This record gives sequence, structure tokens and C-alpha cells, in this order.
Amino acid sequence: MRRAGTTYLRVVRSQVAHGRLVRVDTADAAAMPGVHGVFTAADLPGDVVIPARQPSPGIDFTPYLQAPLAREWVRYVGEPVAFVVADDPYRAEDAALRVRTEIAERPPVLDARRADGTTVESLGAAPARVGTIDTGYGDVEAALAEAPVVVELDLDCGRHTAAPLENRGLTVAYDTDPERLLVWGASKVPFWNRNVMARFLGVPDDTLHLRESDVGGSFGIRGELYAEDLLVVWAAWHLRRTVRWVEDREEHLIAANHAREQQHRVRAGFDDDGRLLALDDEAWLDTGAYIRTHGAVVAALTAGMFAGPYRVPAFRSRVHLVVTNKMGVGTYRAPGRFQNNAAREHLMDLAAARLGLDVAEIRRRNLPTARETEPGRPMKIFGAPMLLDGGDHLAHFEKSLTTVGWDAWQDRAAAARARGELVGVGMAAILEKAGLGLENAVVSVDSSGGVRVAVGAVSVGQGAETALAVAAAEVLGIRPDDVRVVLSDTDTLHDGGGTFASRTTVVAGAAVHQAAQLLRDRLAWTAGRILDRAPDDVVVADHAVVERDGARRRLDLALLARTASAPGFLRPGDEPGLVARSTFSAPTMTYPPGTHFAEVSVDPGTGIVRVTRYAVTYEIGRIMHEGMARGQVTGGVAQGIGGTLLEDLPYDDAGVPLVRTQRDYRAPHARDVPDIDVHLFEDVPAPGNPLGVRGVGEAGIAGVGAAVMNAVRDALGLAGPLRRLPLSQSTVLAALQGR
Amino acid sequence: MRRAGTTYLRVVRSQVAHGRLVRVDTADAAAMPGVHGVFTAADLPGDVVIPARQPSPGIDFTPYLQAPLAREWVRYVGEPVAFVVADDPYRAEDAALRVRTEIAERPPVLDARRADGTTVESLGAAPARVGTIDTGYGDVEAALAEAPVVVELDLDCGRHTAAPLENRGLTVAYDTDPERLLVWGASKVPFWNRNVMARFLGVPDDTLHLRESDVGGSFGIRGELYAEDLLVVWAAWHLRRTVRWVEDREEHLIAANHAREQQHRVRAGFDDDGRLLALDDEAWLDTGAYIRTHGAVVAALTAGMFAGPYRVPAFRSRVHLVVTNKMGVGTYRAPGRFQNNAAREHLMDLAAARLGLDVAEIRRRNLPTARETEPGRPMKIFGAPMLLDGGDHLAHFEKSLTTVGWDAWQDRAAAARARGELVGVGMAAILEKAGLGLENAVVSVDSSGGVRVAVGAVSVGQGAETALAVAAAEVLGIRPDDVRVVLSDTDTLHDGGGTFASRTTVVAGAAVHQAAQLLRDRLAWTAGRILDRAPDDVVVADHAVVERDGARRRLDLALLARTASAPGFLRPGDEPGLVARSTFSAPTMTYPPGTHFAEVSVDPGTGIVRVTRYAVTYEIGRIMHEGMARGQVTGGVAQGIGGTLLEDLPYDDAGVPLVRTQRDYRAPHARDVPDIDVHLFEDVPAPGNPLGVRGVGEAGIAGVGAAVMNAVRDALGLAGPLRRLPLSQSTVLAALQGR
Repeated sequence: MRRAGTTYLRVVRSQVAHGRLVRVDTADAAAMPGVHGVFTAADLPGDVVIPARQPSPGIDFTPYLQAPLAREWVRYVGEPVAFVVADDPYRAEDAALRVRTEIAERPPVLDARRADGTTVESLGAAPARVGTIDTGYGDVEAALAEAPVVVELDLDCGRHTAAPLENRGLTVAYDTDPERLLVWGASKVPFWNRNVMARFLGVPDDTLHLRESDVGGSFGIRGELYAEDLLVVWAAWHLRRTVRWVEDREEHLIAANHAREQQHRVRAGFDDDGRLLALDDEAWLDTGAYIRTHGAVVAALTAGMFAGPYRVPAFRSRVHLVVTNKMGVGTYRAPGRFQNNAAREHLMDLAAARLGLDVAEIRRRNLPTARETEPGRPMKIFGAPMLLDGGDHLAHFEKSLTTVGWDAWQDRAAAARARGELVGVGMAAILEKAGLGLENAVVSVDSSGGVRVAVGAVSVGQGAETALAVAAAEVLGIRPDDVRVVLSDTDTLHDGGGTFASRTTVVAGAAVHQAAQLLRDRLAWTAGRILDRAPDDVVVADHAVVERDGARRRLDLALLARTASAPGFLRPGDEPGLVARSTFSAPTMTYPPGTHFAEVSVDPGTGIVRVTRYAVTYEIGRIMHEGMARGQVTGGVAQGIGGTLLEDLPYDDAGVPLVRTQRDYRAPHARDVPDIDVHLFEDVPAPGNPLGVRGVGEAGIAGVGAAVMNAVRDALGLAGPLRRLPLSQSTVLAALQGR
Repeated sequence: MRRAGTTYLRVVRSQVAHGRLVRVDTADAAAMPGVHGVFTAADLPGDVVIPARQPSPGIDFTPYLQAPLAREWVRYVGEPVAFVVADDPYRAEDAALRVRTEIAERPPVLDARRADGTTVESLGAAPARVGTIDTGYGDVEAALAEAPVVVELDLDCGRHTAAPLENRGLTVAYDTDPERLLVWGASKVPFWNRNVMARFLGVPDDTLHLRESDVGGSFGIRGELYAEDLLVVWAAWHLRRTVRWVEDREEHLIAANHAREQQHRVRAGFDDDGRLLALDDEAWLDTGAYIRTHGAVVAALTAGMFAGPYRVPAFRSRVHLVVTNKMGVGTYRAPGRFQNNAAREHLMDLAAARLGLDVAEIRRRNLPTARETEPGRPMKIFGAPMLLDGGDHLAHFEKSLTTVGWDAWQDRAAAARARGELVGVGMAAILEKAGLGLENAVVSVDSSGGVRVAVGAVSVGQGAETALAVAAAEVLGIRPDDVRVVLSDTDTLHDGGGTFASRTTVVAGAAVHQAAQLLRDRLAWTAGRILDRAPDDVVVADHAVVERDGARRRLDLALLARTASAPGFLRPGDEPGLVARSTFSAPTMTYPPGTHFAEVSVDPGTGIVRVTRYAVTYEIGRIMHEGMARGQVTGGVAQGIGGTLLEDLPYDDAGVPLVRTQRDYRAPHARDVPDIDVHLFEDVPAPGNPLGVRGVGEAGIAGVGAAVMNAVRDALGLAGPLRRLPLSQSTVLAALQGR
């Protein structure tokens, strides 16, 4: 992704969490050799903000949206206030250090729950609470009032981030004839990002050509539209140069989306047999300094998915989005559910203890059968009905217990504890969701007979190419290796979605499957006309179309492709070429159940928790590629272990982020992650898409906080709850002391 | 079209017309500073030749196709034998001079008619005659034998070329992630060229992205696939660098397609009233050293169109393609017809003289009425029936005489001659043809509401953007200026045709018209759903959709575009986005009549012919843009005057081209071209396309040789014919002396 003549962009960031921006002095920086320009908000279009992608009825995000460069105020450490473009990255960084900012500091707001109810001067006196997602059904207060047993839990979840292998980065190449920008690096939602960039520059959408290369992970963080994306394209367009920006790890940790930080207060009412009567959650989501591109998606998923897989007669969830003076938060793998599952499943264990039930038994009593899941939940998520299409949740759970041998887990833990070791086991019953929105696919054969699949989805390291190749290959009777997959190329498709919400195999896979079927029909039609046979008289297989009977004449794909575009072959009204387009629009998400099982060992001296055994069961609907699917779950568990035990993004009282190196942001090492047992069930194909698949991208991470927290409580023999994630050494030691 | 880090390619060419290539020594060149590589045929794939685009039944082009670099033989001066890539163009040229070639010379073959019947050692002993296009109907020999009057003419037409303002040139940029080539400069048939280039490199078609910028002319010459195109893409791919090649004018004159060179022998039989009974033409087409990409297209058009607009009871035309040792010939504006019209119309004047008829009267007696044209000619061109869809040729002719005031032309010339000046007038009745094959169009609205038209056709200076913008704008109720037209971008469309044969407005225009109609329907459907109205209740106009009645609510295109792609708006089965695709495939060409009128003045001392007055009438079907249409005709006449009086590409006896600078290739200056009267008739819309248009790209040039030659014969008062084009000073002086 390098071009000769590339220049390098460096962002000048606020080192202050909150304050009025008095002055930005760029003169010294601009005078340095090799510097092509130093720019502030005054240089950019005056009224542009980074928009929210998805509206949230009843919430107006307008006051909370971020400008690409700070104008009157800075609202978090790391906020871009200026940028430099120079001949090489070292000169750019040196020059950035010479940009002097004068900021009149204000006290930062750092706790969302405490900030709720206040107004924010630096956002035009808007309320700190951006809005509330309020969902549910039934009379929760009445049900709780009448419930014989009510269990409560307050749980705080810290700030995490995805920390993908590659930091964010963008190379924007400037070309003439016609004047265009080729943009590498904006993954996730390329078409939406392109359109926002184009409107920022005031050019037609297709002036920008976005391409994504293989990256080692996105996890929802990487590829959102950030201020920097707009700065880099603006610089390339206005300087008429290729401009490259790659953030360093410190920038990634302070200025790429954070996630997770929520304070939950949960109440659940049970009858005397341990059956849920009502579930109520109120949560404060620290959304950071600005509302980011996904708007209220995390809050909507938190609220919508809180009930998990259970039969809940009355349910309410209220999630308040509150601005603070930290980095904005976004969707990070299993947004909402990671926190939800931890709170709900920890509460289930507390309830089991109160009711004198085994942790499996209380779940068994609350998991619905197929007859009960069929009507779905009487509520909506993102405006769509909440279809519980995962079949019999109870049967899934029972099968999971048997498959992993849960009884033996409990026996081993008990034996270890009998030896005086702090060993415990925990489980979590979860409900996932996957597959949202629409995707376009084009499947075509080129003049050399090569089969190409193009979709708007993105590969972010999850192996989308493989699943999509399988979806086309099985229809066309060829090997997946012989299918070339082009992802997220904004020149190739008119528009497209992207990769998020475990949607790629579901939505893009279905679109590819449909388009491949259309292409197969077209191949048969084309060959039939050449051979003077009916389309049904030929069969598509092995890179050719062959007569079913008779002479068994064979026409290879290259010949068919050239013929299908030849004027002499076509009659008026015929479409030329071997190309088929299809769109798949998922009417609702799919909601597969899963179960997580953890065994932990706690060091009583250090408070260090070691996960010694881990298993996940999951209803995947259909496996497109065994290794990729298992890899998704395995990686998710590893990442979840990091989020549960190690990773945190604390700020000091001045609003200064304390974690600024990867060494401090403690992603799990190999030694922190045990072998993980992954059991993917193909018992209930998803009814809503032709492949029957359910997404698997988030299944591995969603229940880790829950299962590990329950296992630690079991290991420590706590009567009460743990109250905070991550389970840092100090949290664990405090719990040990409080026993 | 420049990229930082660009390298420059220079071709080493044979300076010998014919010989065995003994040795190419690249060592000295490769050792020069700044040289990235020197390559010969040994470095390239061994079996690749430049293919012919269009097969010609009964002719096998295989032995006559050219390799990108000469292997065992060289067959014309200018043939590529090696190439150099260096840091800058000067170093590349210096290094190319150091490449030493050893060639064992053979005598060159320079006359197609004389070579006919021999075999060619340097083409594996293939016959010099590649093949013959033989077409017609009726018993010509019998009709000629019985005809009371038979007129014969031998006419030779010299070598011309188009000499567009820009020479050929290609910039091929190499990009990674993914590895791709962005190719600027290969116009005319971008998709076909792309596919050949891709197969040469052994990569999928879409590894190459071809774009064309505005150029000042192509005329059929520029943008064909040449050896150099393959060399430049190969170099960029293998060196992983941006490679630029721009030929100099000498290269353009000796190594870009030549055209026109034919030797005609015509016989026509008339009854005593001057009515044609039979027409017979035999022609030898000097196809140069190799068969070029268009195969036998020039021969097919020469043979198929020889009868022109007339009623011809028995017709035969045989055109022999014969290889020589000159540059290959291709399709240059009005291929075949320029020569045909000259031969046929000069013969008509000779016949008029023999029969004692006025030159208008003999044409009047032979031009068919609408009733006669309706059945078409009982023969095919390119396998398609020859529909004479131009209506009443006689009526067109009569209207033309009146419109230009032909009687006054004759009177003025007679008066001048009476004063002793060598002034004459001439006319030519012609039949043109336009619109062939298919084209795809995509008309779309982007998220900012901008309307874009994309087609596979190319702009080569003819104003295609304007005509296509009009075709879309009139359907969508917007101004043509508000339509952005993207031409020949191989990433935007799956495939497409190109620009040749006066086809762009006819074929691409029709495709755009159809796609715009589909888009209009889609806009109405989208707005109707939003407004809860039927599509018929809204009207598309002025960048919006508005209710016809009631509240007259208005939805602008940007809103509609964003809504039409929104998952929430779409239902299963709906196609997302405001995009409409259509293909138009012309079942046959359209055949419009036209008439040319010339007045000339000849200097008796120098033999210089001055064209003092010129008029063209033409049945255009429908004018899409007045200025562009008239410009096409005016430019064509100017170019035709060059071809008739000034331009020639002679070779010496050793096969060395004598014209190697633009000064010697005498394109007409402003002083050589009079004001040109252009009369475009819209009397007979073309029935075969929805716009009713007929191409106009070649109407201006097709009859110039004919009309001017007739005018010169009139001016000189010759009893016999002129026998050669161009009418050089020596030709004219010889005719003067022979009076």
C-alpha cells in the first residue's frame, strides 16, 4: 500500500481532557523543512461533523457529534486539533510537536452515572444524558413486588478496546484523469464511509475508491469512520498528493473507539421454584466525549438482549447514554451482550444460591422449549421483531451439559477445593444474534473462465473469503479455491453493507448463494442456446456446462463467457455476459443459543486468576468451513479472557488515560488461554436465510465474562457477588478478604 | 496521468522491412545507468499473438497475426524487436539506440496486387492472399455482357492514417493490495483490450483497470490493441513499477495503423437511359505485414457497401486481403466507404459523360424510392441483413440539390471556366452505415443526489458525453449538464463495447435511454412507497420526485438514494439503491443516405487543388446536440480534404517509409478547408433504436474523395478519369497535360 511520492500525516491531539480551545499556533511547524502544510479547523469546511449511521427514534444526536478537528472546545485527551503533512513520518511527528495549543481547562466529567442529570457547556448546554433506550414488556414493577424472591446485583464493566494487530491506518492515493482518490484502509462499512467522505469533499461518491486489504482483525473498532479518515482524504484531495497516516499504538489506545464501560443495576424476581417472574435492568453507558458513528447501537443491543435465552414473563431494560470526557465508545465484538451476560448470569448464580438450587438446575428451569421460543419475544430490536429462531433452548442446554460433561467439571473442582486449592467452575447460558441488514453480491465469469464473487462485506481477518467462496462454489459445482472473492471494493458494486454484527456469512453468504444460483441458470441458458438444447438438458459442473445425455458435449466457462458477451450471439432484450446480481435483505436477525463453561484456579497470594479449562457450545445452524468457524469461537474466548481478567482503560482524575502502551493494555498471552473445547451444533438451521447459517463471530466472547466470573465466585466460595469486570488482582484479593 | 516513480518505456524497432532476425544484443543497453531492463521476445510468453477481434467466416487469420515482439522474422520497418525501461524517457531512448539487431535482409513485397498469388516464407509459407470477401447478388457477368453501355475504372487509393492530435500513449500504474494495473490510454474497445492484456499476463480480467481520459481524436486508429500495449502492461506487471510509453510522431507514422490503400477495378453496366444494370468491383487491399485486431472488417465494409445508395439489379464485390511488408492497416473513419465512394461516384460521372447525362440526372435515375429501399439489399454485412432504413433515397437527393442550390454551383463554375479559370464542381451520393453491436449502460443516483451515466463506450473527442447526457437528462427531467458521464471504465461495468463505426450515440445512447427509463420508474416506485402513493401519482422532475396532486410533497434525489439503500426501507426481494442497468443490442446497422458537393479551383501552374466551397447533406434521424453533430461532419470533411489532396504514406523500394514527420504527413491546414455547409435532415428517424438516431461520425469524410475528384475532373474538363487518390500535384499536373 505504498506509493512513490507518499507524504505522511500526523495528528496533533489535545493533551487536555476538557477545555476551551483558545489558540492553535501552527507557524513554527509550518516553517519546518519537508512540511507541506499544517491545518486546523479553520481550514476545513465549517459545519461538518462525523454523522451517526443509524438513527435511534426519539434521540437527537446532533449536539453530540464530533467535528473532524476541534473547533471551540476539546472534550477528551486525544481529540484531534490540528494535523501536519510532511515528506516523511519523522518530520511530520517533529512538526506536530511544534504546534502549540492554548487551552483553558475545565474539570472533566468521568463518571456517566454521576454525570446523568447535568448539562454540558462544551456541548452547547446539552444534557449529559444523550437519551435512553427503554424496552421490555409486561408489568415489571408489579411482578417484582409480588415475587417471593428478588435478587439484586450492581455490576460495573470497565473500558476495553479491541486492540487488533494492526492499528488504524489509511493510505489515500491521489490520481488524475479523472481526479480520484484511492483509499486503502477504511474497512467495516466501506460504502457508508465513502459517501460521508465524498460529501465532506463535496464530490460525487465514486470520486473515492475504497479498497480493503487483509487485516488481522477489526472486532468492530477498526474501520468505523473516524475524524482521521476525513483528515487524510481531505489532505490528499487538497494537496493533490498521496497521503498516508498510520496511528501509533498510543494513538490507538487513546483515540480509537473504546467500548464496554457500563454500570448495571439488575433486579430479578423468582418464584419459590426458581422460575423467573420478572427481570429489570437499568444501565448507564459511558459513551465518551461524543456520539460515534453507530449512534445508540450498543445501548440498543444492551437493552434488547438483556433477557438472554430465558423465559422472562415481564422484562424491562433501560440504558442511558451519557457523555463524559473520555474517548468515544463503539461496538466491540458482542457489544452489550458481554456486559449483559456477565450481569444476568452472575445474578442467576446468586439466585441459585438463594434458592438452594444447582447452577445448572436454575437455568434448566428457566430455559424455554421450542414451543415457547416460537412466538419470539414481544418486543423489537432495531425496529425488527425479535424472532427466537434458535429452536429449543432447553434441549440445547441439556445437550451442552452432556457434551462437555459438566458433572465431571463440578467433581474436579470440588476435589481440588477439597485439596485446599481455589478452583471453581462456572457457566453461562447465552443468546446471541447475528445477521442484520442487506448485502449485494455479484457472481460472474470473466473471459478466461474465472469465477469471481464480489460483495460489499469486508474481510477483517475473519475468513469471509472462505465462507463466501464455499457459498458460490457449492452452487456452481467447483472447488472453493477456484472462486476469487473481491470484498468491499466500492468501484465494483453500486453499494453494499459491510462487516459487523456477525453478519457476513448470513447476509453476504445468502446474497452470494442466490447470485450463484442465478449465474448457474444463466450458464445453462447460454450453453443451451449454443447447443440448441433446453437449459434443463445441460448440467453445470467442473468449470463447464455439459449435456446430460446424447453427445455429452462440453462447453468450458471461458468459451461461454466470451460467447455470452458477443453481439452475434445476443438477441434484442438478452442481457450480455455471465454476470448475476442478487441482494439479500435479512428480515430479522437470527438468535442462536449457546453455553459457556469455565474452570478457574485462583492464586490466593496474588489474586491472579488462571482459566484452566474452557468449553463453548453453540447452535451455528450450518458450518460453512469447520476451521474458520471454530477459529472464530476460539479467538473470541481468548479475547474474552483478556476482557475479563486483564484489559482495562482507566483514566486519572484529570481525565488523562493511564494506559498508553500495549504493554499496559494487557491483551492475553498464550499462557493466559487454555485449550478451548468448541462444540458447534448444526441442529437448527436458521430459517431466515437460504444457507441456514447463523453468525459465529461473537459467540466466543459473549459469555466469557459471565462464565469466568461465576467460576471465580465458585472458586472463592463467595456468598455474595463480584461487582466489577475486569477481575483484576486487586478486585479478586478484595473479594478473598471479604469472604 | 503521471505518477511519482514513473519509469519510461522505449521500443526498439526494426529499421529493415523484411528479414530474418539473427540476433538482438541488449547487453550494452542493459548496462546503462537508470535502465531497469531490456527485453526481447525471449522474455515474453512464447506463443502469444495479437488476436483478431472479429472472425471472418472462411478466413483463417492465424498465420498472419503479430507477436508483441518479433521472434524469427521482421516484416516491416517499425516492427518492435525489443524494449527498454528506464528512469526517464531520455535514458530510455539512449539505451534503445544501444540495442543492436542483426537482420538477414530479404526483398520486401510492396504491391498487394502483384503479390497476390505468391507465398510468404516469413509467414511460414502462408499465401500472400489472406482471403477474399466476396459478396453480392444476381448474375453480374451476364448483366454486364448484355448491358448496352459498360463503363470501367481502375482507381488506386494511397495509404493514409488518422494522425490524431495525441499520439498513442499508455501509462500503466502498478498498485498493490491487491496487485493491480491501472491503465490509462487504451481507448476504442477497452473491455476487449483489457481481456487480451489479462490473458497475456495470465491474470483475471479485472486485475487491469482501464480508464480513458479525454483525447483529441481516435478516428479508429488510436486505441486498437497494439504490440506496445502488451509490452507496457507486461513491463509494469513484471517490474512492479508504473511504466509510461508515449510514442513520438515518427513512431506514430510508421507503427500505428495505416489505412485506405486499395486498388479498385470497377465495371458498371447501364441501359440506354443511364440506369444501372450491374455493378462489379474487384479490389486488392494492402493489409500490411500482419492482420490487425479488426481482422477483415475493412474488406467486409468495402465489399458490403460498394453499391452505395443506388438501385443495383446485379452486384458483386470481391476484396482480396493481401499481406505486404508495410505497417498493418486498420479501420480509419469511413473505412472502405471513402475509397468505394470515390471509385463508384467517379465512375458515375464517367458514365454520365458517356451517356450524355447531367451528373445529377444519372444519379436521380438510379436512386431508389422508399418503396424500393424497404426490402433492403438481398445480402448481409457482418452476418446481419442489410436493411436500407434511410427512407426515400431519391427524395433525399432531390431535397439535397434544392437545399444547397446545386444549379447555382454549376452556373458559378461554368462562369469561372468561361473566364479561363480551372474551376469545377462535383457531387457524390453516398450511403453511410452506423450503430453496430451492443452496449451496456448503468444510470444511477449517488448519495448526494448526483446522476451518473456509465457506459462501455469511449470518448475519443467526438462529444459522446454530451449525447449520452442528453439521452439520460431528457428522460429524467434534468439538464444535461447535471448528468455526469463515465465512459469506458472497466471497473464500473461488467463489460462493454467501445467506440467505433459511428455507433456511440446509436447503441450506447439507446442503452442509456432505456436505463434512464428504468431509473425513472425506480424513482417513482421509491418515492411512492415513502409517500404511500402509487408510482403513477408522482412525477420525476428537477432532481426530485413530486406528488402530482394533493400536498405536492417533494423528495429530492439525495434523500431517495439514501432511503433506497436503507435496510429498514427494503423488503425481501427488493433491489437496493437507485441504479438501473440496460443493454441495447442493435439488430442491424442503420443506413442513412447523404450527399456531398464540392467546388474546386486548380492552379494550372502548380497543380494545386483548392477546395473553395463544400456542402454536405445527411439524414441523421435525430440530432442529440446540434453543435456536436455539425462538428462531426465539418471535421470529417476537413479530414477528407487532407486524404483527398495532401496525405500519403509512400514507401521506397526497400520498404522504408518516406513520411516520418508530421510536416511530411500533410494534414490540412485551416487555409486548405473552406467554410462547410452542413445540412442535417431529421426526416427519417432510425426505426431500430428508441432515440431514432443515426450515427454521424463518418458522414463528413466518406464522400470527400468522390466529390472533390469529380470536381477536379470537371475543372480540368477531362474526358477520362482520374486514377489515383490523393490528388497530388503531380497527379493533377499529369492529368492537365494529358487532356
